[in-house]
Amino acid sequence: MTKPCIICVAITGSVPTKADNPAVPTTVAEQIESTHAAFEAGASIAHCHVRNDDETPSSDPERFARLKEGIEKHCPGMIIQLSTGGRSGAGKTRGGMLPLAPDMASLSVGSNNFPTRVYENPPDLVDWLAGEMRSYQVTPEIEAFDLSHILQAIRLHGEHRLFGNLYVQFVMGVKNAMPADKQVFDFYVKTMQDRAPDAEWCAAGIGPNQLLVNEWAIAAGGHTRT
Amino acid sequence: MTKPCIICVAITGSVPTKADNPAVPTTVAEQIESTHAAFEAGASIAHCHVRNDDETPSSDPERFARLKEGIEKHCPGMIIQLSTGGRSGAGKTRGGMLPLAPDMASLSVGSNNFPTRVYENPPDLVDWLAGEMRSYQVTPEIEAFDLSHILQAIRLHGEHRLFGNLYVQFVMGVKNAMPADKQVFDFYVKTMQDRAPDAEWCAAGIGPNQLLVNEWAIAAGGHTRT
Ligand SMILES: [Zn+2]
Ligand SMILES: [Zn+2]
Ligand SMILES: [Zn+2]
Ligand SMILES: [Zn+2]
Repeated sequence: MTKPCIICVAITGSVPTKADNPAVPTTVAEQIESTHAAFEAGASIAHCHVRNDDETPSSDPERFARLKEGIEKHCPGMIIQLSTGGRSGAGKTRGGMLPLAPDMASLSVGSNNFPTRVYENPPDLVDWLAGEMRSYQVTPEIEAFDLSHILQAIRLHGEHRLFGNLYVQFVMGVKNAMPADKQVFDFYVKTMQDRAPDAEWCAAGIGPNQLLVNEWAIAAGGHTRT
Repeated sequence: MTKPCIICVAITGSVPTKADNPAVPTTVAEQIESTHAAFEAGASIAHCHVRNDDETPSSDPERFARLKEGIEKHCPGMIIQLSTGGRSGAGKTRGGMLPLAPDMASLSVGSNNFPTRVYENPPDLVDWLAGEMRSYQVTPEIEAFDLSHILQAIRLHGEHRLFGNLYVQFVMGVKNAMPADKQVFDFYVKTMQDRAPDAEWCAAGIGPNQLLVNEWAIAAGGHTRT
């Protein structure tokens, strides 16, 4: 049997609103149905963000709880991954939903530039989030915006500071961070294969790079994110 | 004639004090004589930080002016590079010495983690520092703490946003940033050779990695930093 490709569906993200695209699901009810449709279409992981009523990003544990409950009901067996990303809150509020004990949660282990600001993941916050994930048995998906983040994830996993199997996502195409670059992608894959052969990896191309990076990831035997 | 190796001497840095090592030059007078000794020993670039009277890091333009004047007098022809690093100040104070029009100044073009905090180089500050360097005809030395910083430097130079020839320094061995890693080093070198064949590059290993990274850089045809 060949190795299956895991499709992770990022139904909402933290940036787009209905003004950008009326199809973006921003209420919990819309997110549940959108995830359900993706699940029926073959997605195995739901990468979840929640929004306030005005569509701005939120880390509200109560909204995450309702979303998680709905996905569990409509999509039995789907892996639920909640975002601890920095666009939805600052400091420890980013991990306020981890006591819900989702299957997975995103985790950034380094800092980098975003289009107009610094994406701040200071070492003490990374340690705290990783510790909460260990406490609630949440497997992190490492969001690697640069090469050192991959090496840091491998190091932290080797030190038993990341719960579960190591799962690394290469994020490419964010302005002022790592571009969608095939030579870099190939080096990322080689780095994972050489140094963490038991880990899984996936890749996401942001915006117009999405399908390109999906193709690279599938062709190289990795997993993929919408 | 073979290509010469440029030795850049970082006489003071921003962290160590005389309590760590009594030989660290922290007054301007000590820095001038220390640079002079390095110049006599073959160093061609002086990478300069200044300190307050209590040895804490500073970006004080007046101290930088006295240091620059002293090095010019004692070390005729030496290339003077002033640090705009973030340990010595925040925001635009980091570039307050650029009107002194040194030959070079350090420039970080991305953000990353340091041992206990985020090294913040937000995009608007990078743009401002690069613009000041163009105004005063200062060639930046790009301090690359991660792979995307190298690609960003090549991109900015291609857009004529960096004055002079492209000069990139690979910084390896800072905890929570890029470790001193030979495979990564080799990929850095290949990236420079493939994408910026007219540029120069050097490498610095922090702390115990210094001589190791010096050896890698010299063997690969690059330049080196103490
Ligand atoms: Zn996300
Ligand atoms: Zn449904
Ligand atoms: Zn320095
Ligand atoms: Zn002298």
